[in-house]
Formats: sequence, C-alpha cells, structure tokens
Amino acid sequence: MDFELNDDQRAFADLAAQFSRDQLAPNAAKWDEEQIFPKPVLKQAGELGFLSLYTPQAQGGLGLSRLDSSIIFEQLAMGCTSTTAFMTIHNMVTWMVSSFASETVKQTVCPKLISGEWLGSYCLTEPNAGSDAAALGTSATLTDQGYVINGAKVFISGAGETEVLVVMVRTGGEGAKGISAFVVPANSDGVSFGRKEPKMGWNSQPTRSITFDNVLIPKHNLLGEEGQGFAFAMKGLDGGRINIATCSVGTAQQALNQAIQYVSERKQFGQAISDFQAVQFKLADMATELVAARQMVRLAASKLDHGNSEATAYCAMAKRFATDIGFKVCDQALQLYGGYGYIKEYPMERYFRDVRVHQILEGSNEIMRVIIARRLLSEGSAIL
Amino acid sequence: MDFELNDDQRAFADLAAQFSRDQLAPNAAKWDEEQIFPKPVLKQAGELGFLSLYTPQAQGGLGLSRLDSSIIFEQLAMGCTSTTAFMTIHNMVTWMVSSFASETVKQTVCPKLISGEWLGSYCLTEPNAGSDAAALGTSATLTDQGYVINGAKVFISGAGETEVLVVMVRTGGEGAKGISAFVVPANSDGVSFGRKEPKMGWNSQPTRSITFDNVLIPKHNLLGEEGQGFAFAMKGLDGGRINIATCSVGTAQQALNQAIQYVSERKQFGQAISDFQAVQFKLADMATELVAARQMVRLAASKLDHGNSEATAYCAMAKRFATDIGFKVCDQALQLYGGYGYIKEYPMERYFRDVRVHQILEGSNEIMRVIIARRLLSEGSAIL
Amino acid sequence: MDFELNDDQRAFADLAAQFSRDQLAPNAAKWDEEQIFPKPVLKQAGELGFLSLYTPQAQGGLGLSRLDSSIIFEQLAMGCTSTTAFMTIHNMVTWMVSSFASETVKQTVCPKLISGEWLGSYCLTEPNAGSDAAALGTSATLTDQGYVINGAKVFISGAGETEVLVVMVRTGGEGAKGISAFVVPANSDGVSFGRKEPKMGWNSQPTRSITFDNVLIPKHNLLGEEGQGFAFAMKGLDGGRINIATCSVGTAQQALNQAIQYVSERKQFGQAISDFQAVQFKLADMATELVAARQMVRLAASKLDHGNSEATAYCAMAKRFATDIGFKVCDQALQLYGGYGYIKEYPMERYFRDVRVHQILEGSNEIMRVIIARRLLSEGSAIL
Amino acid sequence: MDFELNDDQRAFADLAAQFSRDQLAPNAAKWDEEQIFPKPVLKQAGELGFLSLYTPQAQGGLGLSRLDSSIIFEQLAMGCTSTTAFMTIHNMVTWMVSSFASETVKQTVCPKLISGEWLGSYCLTEPNAGSDAAALGTSATLTDQGYVINGAKVFISGAGETEVLVVMVRTGGEGAKGISAFVVPANSDGVSFGRKEPKMGWNSQPTRSITFDNVLIPKHNLLGEEGQGFAFAMKGLDGGRINIATCSVGTAQQALNQAIQYVSERKQFGQAISDFQAVQFKLADMATELVAARQMVRLAASKLDHGNSEATAYCAMAKRFATDIGFKVCDQALQLYGGYGYIKEYPMERYFRDVRVHQILEGSNEIMRVIIARRLLSEGSAIL
Repeated sequence: MDFELNDDQRAFADLAAQFSRDQLAPNAAKWDEEQIFPKPVLKQAGELGFLSLYTPQAQGGLGLSRLDSSIIFEQLAMGCTSTTAFMTIHNMVTWMVSSFASETVKQTVCPKLISGEWLGSYCLTEPNAGSDAAALGTSATLTDQGYVINGAKVFISGAGETEVLVVMVRTGGEGAKGISAFVVPANSDGVSFGRKEPKMGWNSQPTRSITFDNVLIPKHNLLGEEGQGFAFAMKGLDGGRINIATCSVGTAQQALNQAIQYVSERKQFGQAISDFQAVQFKLADMATELVAARQMVRLAASKLDHGNSEATAYCAMAKRFATDIGFKVCDQALQLYGGYGYIKEYPMERYFRDVRVHQILEGSNEIMRVIIARRLLSEGSAIL
Repeated sequence: MDFELNDDQRAFADLAAQFSRDQLAPNAAKWDEEQIFPKPVLKQAGELGFLSLYTPQAQGGLGLSRLDSSIIFEQLAMGCTSTTAFMTIHNMVTWMVSSFASETVKQTVCPKLISGEWLGSYCLTEPNAGSDAAALGTSATLTDQGYVINGAKVFISGAGETEVLVVMVRTGGEGAKGISAFVVPANSDGVSFGRKEPKMGWNSQPTRSITFDNVLIPKHNLLGEEGQGFAFAMKGLDGGRINIATCSVGTAQQALNQAIQYVSERKQFGQAISDFQAVQFKLADMATELVAARQMVRLAASKLDHGNSEATAYCAMAKRFATDIGFKVCDQALQLYGGYGYIKEYPMERYFRDVRVHQILEGSNEIMRVIIARRLLSEGSAIL
Repeated sequence: MDFELNDDQRAFADLAAQFSRDQLAPNAAKWDEEQIFPKPVLKQAGELGFLSLYTPQAQGGLGLSRLDSSIIFEQLAMGCTSTTAFMTIHNMVTWMVSSFASETVKQTVCPKLISGEWLGSYCLTEPNAGSDAAALGTSATLTDQGYVINGAKVFISGAGETEVLVVMVRTGGEGAKGISAFVVPANSDGVSFGRKEPKMGWNSQPTRSITFDNVLIPKHNLLGEEGQGFAFAMKGLDGGRINIATCSVGTAQQALNQAIQYVSERKQFGQAISDFQAVQFKLADMATELVAARQMVRLAASKLDHGNSEATAYCAMAKRFATDIGFKVCDQALQLYGGYGYIKEYPMERYFRDVRVHQILEGSNEIMRVIIARRLLSEGSAIL
Repeated sequence: MDFELNDDQRAFADLAAQFSRDQLAPNAAKWDEEQIFPKPVLKQAGELGFLSLYTPQAQGGLGLSRLDSSIIFEQLAMGCTSTTAFMTIHNMVTWMVSSFASETVKQTVCPKLISGEWLGSYCLTEPNAGSDAAALGTSATLTDQGYVINGAKVFISGAGETEVLVVMVRTGGEGAKGISAFVVPANSDGVSFGRKEPKMGWNSQPTRSITFDNVLIPKHNLLGEEGQGFAFAMKGLDGGRINIATCSVGTAQQALNQAIQYVSERKQFGQAISDFQAVQFKLADMATELVAARQMVRLAASKLDHGNSEATAYCAMAKRFATDIGFKVCDQALQLYGGYGYIKEYPMERYFRDVRVHQILEGSNEIMRVIIARRLLSEGSAIL
C-alpha cells in the first residue's frame, strides 16, 4: 500500500496547477457571469494533453490511468470547476471514440478531439429517463443508407457548440441490451438544439436539449456493435463519476485554501476570525472530510484502473461521498466569508453554485446509494 | 398553551397568501433574473398594510404583534423570498421611525413609509464591523446647523433606491453607549452610493454601500436621545431575526409543497418518484424539521411580544434554527427535482440561492450561538 | 397562540419536579445498576396522581390533558428516565382500562391501577411483528366459559412483576379489524413469563416475553367490542409517542443542565471548559434543538387534546424529532464530560443508554417516517 | 499509489481474523457481562506476536509497520473491541520499553511483555489534566537510591492487573520539557490502586486510578533521558490514535456485516427488511463512510511509517473521523436491529457501548480538532 504521488504524477499535477492558475482561475468569474464557453482555452488544454488524458497512446492520447487523470483534473478544477467538468466530459467522449469507434471514425475524429479543434458532447439523458436506462426512447433504425436516428436528449453539456456527439440510442428491444452508441456529427441534417438553458451554475459550458429528427448517419458511426451501448455507457459512467467527484474535491480544496487565508486576515471583535475556536474547529472538519473525500476518489480510480470487480461500487461510493463533502466544504467556506461569501466579488458563491450540480448528475447521489446497496446485499460482496 | 391561529390571524394569513400568489409568485423569477426592485408592488403591499405591520396604530400602522407579523410574512415569503425580506427590513425602519423619531420627523416620514410612497433602508453594517457594534466607526458631530455625519456603510438593502435611511452612528465615546440612530434623507448632500452589488440571490432588492461625506442633518433627525442607538438596534435585531427566520420558513414551505407535487407526478423506473421509500423518508424529515422551525419562530415572536426577559436568546435560537433548516429543506427540494432543480425554468434554485443569505445576515448564525451560549452560561438563565 | 404554562401547569410541574428530585433522582443509579423495579416509589407516585394523569376524573383519575401530562412527565423524566417511561406505560394501561373496560372490570381494576397497588403492562409486540399489526398472531377464541387466549408477546415492560396485562389479540379475520383488546390478570392460569431480558438500559423496569397457553378469561374482560382493539392501540400509540418523546426531552434537559454546570467548573489548560468557544457553540446547539423538541412534543399533545384530524402525523413527527434530539443531546453531554462521561460514577452514560431505546420503541423512528410521509403524500393533507 | 494489501498483509490479516473468530468473538459477551480481563487469551495473542506487532525485531517483536499493525488490529477488533483496545495499549507499552529503555530493563521486561507473561499499562492521564500535558503533576525526585515518584494517575487501562507501568512524570520544570517517562513495576512499594471503575463499556479491561506514594525505582528505569518523556508520549499518541481509530473501524465493520445479514433475514410487513429502500440507503451510507474511515486510518499509518512531517495532523484527522464514523455505524446497526439491538442477547449494544469511548480517549475528538486546526493555520502546512 502506498499513498504518495510518484514523480510523474507530481510533474503532471504541477503542470495542471500552472495551467489552472494561469488560464482558468483568472477568467472563471467572467466565464460564469457572461456564460462564455472558453473554446480557445480548451484548445490550449488540448495542446497540453488535457483533453485526452486516458485516451490510449496508440490513438494519440496520453494513455494515463484514471488515477493519474484524477490527480490532474483536481488541479484544473481548482481554477474553474465548470470548465474542468466539461473537460472531463470531453475526455470521456474522446476515450469512447478512441476505444470503440471504427477505424474510419477514429481517424477522422480522434485527432481533432485530442487537439481540441473539435469538442465533444455525451448524450445519454432523456426527458423521461433521468437515471433509468431501460426507459431510453431515442431510436435508430438501420436502413440501406445507414442508421436513422429519432428522439430527444436533454441536459447535454456543450450542446450547440460542440462538433461531435456520442449518442446512446435504442437499436433493439427493450432494456439495456437494446442500446447502442453512435458518433453523430453535430451538424448533421435533422439535428437541432434547444435554447441555452439558464442554470444556477456550470455557466462556462452551455447546456441544451437536442432533437434528432430523421438524422441519417453512416453505419460505421456505430461504436462497437449493436447492443454494446449500455456497456460502454456503464464503463463511461464509472470513470465519469470519478471525474465529477474529482471536480468537487478540487473546488472544495480551493475554497478551503482561500477560506483559511481569509479568516487569518479578516478581523472581528479585535482579533483575526481564525482566532475563534469555533472557526478553527470548522476548518479542521472541512479539511478532514476533504482528505477523506480525496482518498475515496483515488481508491475508486485505482480499483477502476485495476479492473477490480467491485470498481462500480467503489466509484459510486466515491461519487456520493466526494460530491456531498465537496458541496459541504464550499457551503461552509462561503459561511466563513460572511456577507462577502454571498457577493460575486468573491468566488465563494460561484464554487457553491458550481459544485451543487455534482450531487445530481452522472447518476444522482440517490442512484449511487441504490448501486452501493444492491452490491452490499448481493452474494459474495467484497466491497468492504 | 394554545398552538392554533385565531380568526384574525387566519384572515391576515389568507390576505397575505392571496397577495403572495397573485403579485409576488408570478413575478419573482423575472425580478431575480433581471434584478428588478419591484417598487410598484411594494406600494401595493403598503396599501394592504404590509409595510407597517407592527407600527403602532397611533402612527398609522396596523399595530400587530410580532407573532401576527410573522404569520403574515411567512405567507408573503412563499411568493418571493427576496422581496418579502426587503419588506421586513422596511417594516423595521417604519417601526423604528414611528416609535423613536421626533414628532417633526414622524409626521413627515411615517405616512410615506407606511404607504410605500417612500421606502426605507437600515444602515448598520460597516466594512470592518460585521457583527461587532463596538467597532462602529461612522461618526456624527453636533454643530450649530445640526449633526454632520461621516463614514461608510456596506451591504445596505435597498440603498440607492430608497428615500429614507436609518443610520447607526457614533456620537459619543467608545462602545455601545456611544452609538446613536438617525434618520437621514437618502438625497442629502454628501450621501453617495456604491455600485449595485452583484449577489448570488436576493436580487429583487439592490444592495449597495453608502458613503457619508459631511452629511448635514437637522438635530431633530436624531432618534430618541444620543446614546440610545445601540439599544434601538438591539430591539430591532430581535425582531429582525424573527423576520428573516420567517422568510426561511415560508420559502422552505413553498419548496416542500412544490417538491411533494413534483415527486408525485415525476416518474422514474416506471413509478412515481414518491413511491420510493427513500424519497418518502426525505419528505418526512423535511416536513418535520420545518414544523419545528416554524414553532421556534412563533415561540420567539411570542416571547418578544410579551417582553420576556429571555426574548433575545429565543430570537437567536429561532434565527439559527429556522434559517439552517430553511436552507436544508430548500437544498433537499432542489435535489428531489434532479437536473430540473438546477435550471432556472424551475424555482428551486432560486429558493436555494435566496435563503442561503439568511444564515449570514441579521447576525450570522455563529453570532447567534455566541448569544445563546452567553445566556446559557450566565447566572439564573431561564431559557429552557 | 400562547406558549406559556398556565398556573395549574406550573403547579403540577413543580410538584412533579419535587418528586423527581426527592424520590427518583437519588435512586436512579442504584435502580439501574441493580435492576430494581421500584414498586414502593411507584406507589408513592400513584398517591400523587402520577399513575392516572389522563384517566378521566369520573374513574378516579386526574383527568388532565395530554399536554398537561407531558409537562408533568418531563419533570419526572429528569429524575429517572426508565422509571418515568414505565409510568407512562402504566398511565396508558390505566387510561385504556378506565375508558374502554366493562363496568365490572373498571370497578375491580381501576382503583388499584390508579393507586399503584397494582401495576399494568401493555402487550402488543410479538416476535414476528415488530411494528406490523397485520402480522399479529396471538389469538382468542370465544367459548362458553369465556375467551381462550394463545400466543406470545415480547419486549413487555413490567412483565412478570405487574398484575394487569392489556393484551392485543386476534379474535377475527386478517388485518387490523380482526384485533381485539383484553384485560388479562397476570396470574391467570396459562400465563408464563420468559427470563428477565438483560438490556442496555431501561433497567429499572423488567422486560420479559409472555406466553399465553390456553388462558381462559371472562368475556367481560374484553375492552370495548371485538375488532376495536387496533383502534384502541392506535389511540394509545399517539399518546404513547408523546409520552416517550417527553421522556427524551426531560432526560436531555437534565443532561444539558448538568453539562452546563460541569463545563463551568471543570478546568482544562488553565481555564474552565466553558470558556472554549467550541464548547459554547455545542451547548448553544444542544439548547436550541432541545427547545425545538419540546415545542414539537407540546404541539402534538395539543393536537391530540383537540382531536385534530392530523394529530397522528404530529405525534409521529414529535416522536421522531424529540427522541432523535434527546439522544443527540445526551450523547453530546456525555462527550463534554470526557472520560467522566463514560464511567458510572456520573449519570451521563445512564442517560445515554436509557434514551437510546426511545428511537426504537412505540413504533421505530423509521415507522414514524412512514406515517408522516403517507400523510404528506395523501390528498388534502393539512399537516403543515 | 497502491491501495491493495500485499501478500504478507493478507496472511497476517487472515491469521488475525482466525484468532478473532476463534478466541475473541465467542467470549466477548461474557467478558463484557462479567467484567473479565482475559489474561489467558492475551497470552495466546502474545504467542502469535500480537503483543509486539511494531516492536523492533531486534528486541524480539514482529517489527511490522504501523500500517501492517492496523490491518491486524482491525481484524482483532471485529472479535472483541475492548480486548483489542487493551492489546493496542500493551503494544504501545512494549514498543516504548523496547525502544527507549536501558539495556537492563529491556532484558528483564521486553521478553515478558512480548510473550504476554507480563502485561503493561500506560499511565499518562491525571485527575486535573485530561488532555493537558503542561498540567501534569506527578513528580519524580532523583535521590541516591534512585527516583522517588509521588502523585496520581486516573483512567489507567489494565491497572491493578498488569505488571508493568510506563508512567509519565515531571522531573524538571514546568511545561512539556520537564516530563520524563519511567518503567515502574506495578508491585513496587507505595503503588496502590483505586477501585475497579464501573464503566459503560470496555469491560474486558479493568480501569483504575493509581497512587504513587514515595515509590522508589532504580535510576535505570528511566526511559531515554530526563525531559524526553513528552516526546515519547507524543510519538506514542500518534500511533495510539491510529490504533484506537482502527478498533472503531473493525468494530463498525463487524456491526455492519451482521446488520446486513440481519436485515436480509428479518421480515416485516411481509418482506425482508432489506427490501425497504430506506434500509438500503442507510446501509449504503454506512458502508461508504466506513470505507472512508478505513482509508483515513491507513493513510495516517502510512504517513507515520514514512516519518512524514505532517503525520501528527493525519493521525489526528484519522482518529477524529474514524471514531466518529465508527460510533455512527454501530449506532445505526443497532437501530436496524430494532428492539433486538437494545438487548444483550445480540452484540449490537455492546459494540455501541464499546466504541463510544474511542471518541473521548487518546485525546478527545475536540483535542484532535485543535491539533488539526493549529496545523492548518500555521505557515507552510502541507496537510492537504
């Protein structure tokens, strides 16, 4: 057992921290306020490899592990939660295409996703199927010309401003086995986008619904084989949960760091706020729980990297725990700032708004509990 | 002991509920989004007496108790948290002027505050004195022409768009006894306002800092006598804490009502979300804690009405408890909405943003604990 | 609305407080340690009316309301949780007999239950039916000689040392409507008792299982009519929940009072523990939540007294909230005592052990949530 | 980074699990009930090396790391919390003697401590100095015959039934630098023991106070040099905190395992309790937090093993977090058992009583927060 970063991990973390400090942090407030999707900065991230962290090297990615990637994403999230969260989604798209697409699609799409010339959206959620894959209704029918897709997706990150859509679609019968995954160019005929959804946070990435109206795509745009879509989605979700949990940890760390500095400088009743024991105890608990959250994320990432049979349960635990703690820490950091925590001149309220959605998406934290409990109650569970 | 509303209270509550449903609720999202201070609607509220609930009848107010007022404010807060919160501040200003101002000022100012033709701001907080009255630095010097005020206030609700400022100022030596309260016309020479502060919520009321640069006001604009300001402020704060706690209760009740309806209609995995036991348990806890919060607020209001010697401690308990529970309930209601809780098409995220500040202002919840503990640890405490 | 005790309530509370201080508190540790069921003291309680608080005056009881009774039980519980909890059970038995028994039984049994010459046990729970009335399996068959009862009950407070058993039995078909209630003399042929159950707390009242083996009882020992048993049980439960919640409030109040005194006297690092802000904040939260718990109990008792149609939901809320808070306060008081909280020389660990069971019995707090949620999700709920 | 046990660790864990199942678990209830200090079983533990896990091999110990030891203690705690907790204290004593004693003492004492022929007690706490080393008042004066010790210690595990006392004593001036550590034979003239302290739990180890009345010990019984005692104590405490945190994790794991089995078998309302979603969610949270607690303990142990400069802060975090979670999990497991959780026929109430003290001793969890906060607020902290 070993809990220390190795030299490579330290080097990557340093690189990410620098990018985060230089390119993300100074702009995050503006991107939030003006709802700017920072494509040029995403392209810079691509140049450093941050858009293909765990894409295989054979396909042009960095070929890092999920654990390595989490260490990097954590640093990035310290600079901008919302933009980093989008990067993690893009990384999932890049990985999925690079791992399961036909050679034709790989050659066209992968290099551009890796460089950030093109950006990707992941299209799973539907209006009537939040966390319920069995209810997925978007369909694809195979014709001589290719697949014809019909249906609608909602809450799609990047939608309307990305070039590549990975879409989960029903090609076969009911249930999970009837689901397939496709690469759909965003500019295909019949693809249309809803209005940019006004959101509480995550404002540096646009969210829109997408309608597929007889969208024709070539047969080779199928990922893997028909019926494998759900398996891909599940694989993607395990990693996606680590990613989103990581974004919570990074943001909370940033909030805690700033809160420590703030309470050390801000004076009340003739002394620094940090001299009050209740403030000290609050900081101690924030730090303790945050360390625990980070450990859970890294443990889960490691399980996923090792193909551990309990990886899904560990990822669910990490997602539930780290996103809850991440929000709690940001909430308490905001409180430590007093009135200054509530105004936009300081970043606390942005952290608070941004991390809140992590408890909802990638499978809500309630769904995480369903997954964990199912595993605990099944035979031969070795989660613990 | 009697826990039921009497007929008058029911009638007032019904009137407030109707105004809340008709005038506040339909506009609250727009006021939030566009940061509109709804002066015309505030004037309508004035016509119904909602701007002078506990102002003495002799001065033209409704002369209700704090408990009655809380019952009314709760209904109003169900329609718009932020606007109701401003109304509670305005009520405090109206009450303070009607109770302590010179006859000259009363006659000029009270009728207009009561009708809503003029609006009032309460100016206590300073940049370097969040909850610390002893550090108050804004000063007034008595000259032949009147008092000359210099200094600055921050986080002033309504500032820049209200006509009447009640300002806490140091006229004497150090400490609480050197503080006096003044009525300052907002258009006085030397009064200037900072930029409209961008905030996470409470967007239907502008927040600005105010600078007083040699502001000359007549001697009769002093409230009561020199040195009484701190006592007035403390009296105001007890009521202010009940008010803000009430705004949390009303908002949380609204969030819970809507969440119950949402989970009864929204389907997942082939059944209504409300069929899931974990959702039911969550609702049960939300309702239970909310009932407890409401009881705490009404208990404290009753203590204040009866001039109970422990009223300050009860108000602090009510404020701490109800604003914490209010936020918790709104947070959980948001979670029950899933992704829809995070987008501005639904009101959950607004409730969540609006009530968050209640844990911070009118004395942060940390200050409430200081007040409660001090009382518990002093001789002869009869809080419990 | 009125939150103050009236003169009668104050007088009863004072009387109860005196009995609690003089007769209960000095002996509670010994009763716990040596598992003594303090029959003589219970008889003294009977002389003061504490065994028939809400038994109708026509039957010889005090005829108080549930709210009055709660005020009295709270004082008693400050002296001994376990003994007071038994008194509340006995009160329920007395009330049930006095309200629903035949004249014959009333005349024989009531005076002795009221005086404490006889004690009563309430027999509902069965081995395979914790909170599930429908699964109740103990049966009674009507014969020419009377009813013949067969079956078993578990976790019966007082069993083996009480004279009167009120037993819930199935006389008819399935479900709640097949249940009837009987008065069974404890010394009837065929009644046998299990071993005295070693328990974590509640040690001043014996707990045993009871087996009914062809127990013949006169027909007039039926309470009310056949099939009414479940309705009686439910009525009893609402009150029982207020009672047990009250025992938590009283115990927690006692724990808090002692903790405040302890931290004011105990020194660490050269100052009283109470000088540490983290200790102060803890006390503030304990007191605040305890006040809220008491309010919930009194609100529910008042609803029950007024026959409010939502009384069951309010009782469930009060039981859930007050027993959770009661335990939390005792747990934190124990922690404030440090190592002294863990040893039997101080009462903290006894409070902690005694109140823990309140979260489990009279319907577990999970069952309370089921009840509350069912009401929230039904049409026309007016709980809130 | 690597989160998996290596082969040696697995082998040790298996051996410990077997001993735990065979020798501890079957007897734990009896030891608790009858307050038996199981010396023969401790001797068996010694034969397997469990009394000298991290004692250097050169001195006859197993020479394992703190992390290895934690893995072993966790398995042992699953069988008996209280006995394992004593073993961890004994291990600390063995390690301290083997590391810092004079050759003379080492040769006499170490082999017997390692084999379990002799048992050891660690004597730090004093009546007026719970967690406050500076207030330590037991003194030693150097005379021609040796050191003469006077003073008193309280809450000493094993006292009265152990042979070797390691005692912290003031030999010099005020503060930490005046403290020295001594090996005192328990049968020395002038050593006397208080009554066996009745406790809520930890009943398989006796707790007594010790009085030192002119106790003369040879000069070579000093550990290290004069003034090093506090440094030894601090070193011991870091490890002691990991140990006690480990005992919480092991016990909670055992409670969770049994609760999962119980709810899978126990039926209510016609179905297994485990079919209720609220029960499933509870289990999921218990498991998640327990995994986090274990990770915190192992992280801290690893930091201690590597001599990391932040080890003390990590140990404090692990102790605070794991003992809080450990108690919470046991409390919830008890609740899942319903009434059966409260009676001594089932082990839940014992787990609950036993782990409760872990939040208090080895530095209370409040002291842990002081340690963590101090580090967070100091320059150059690298805890996070």
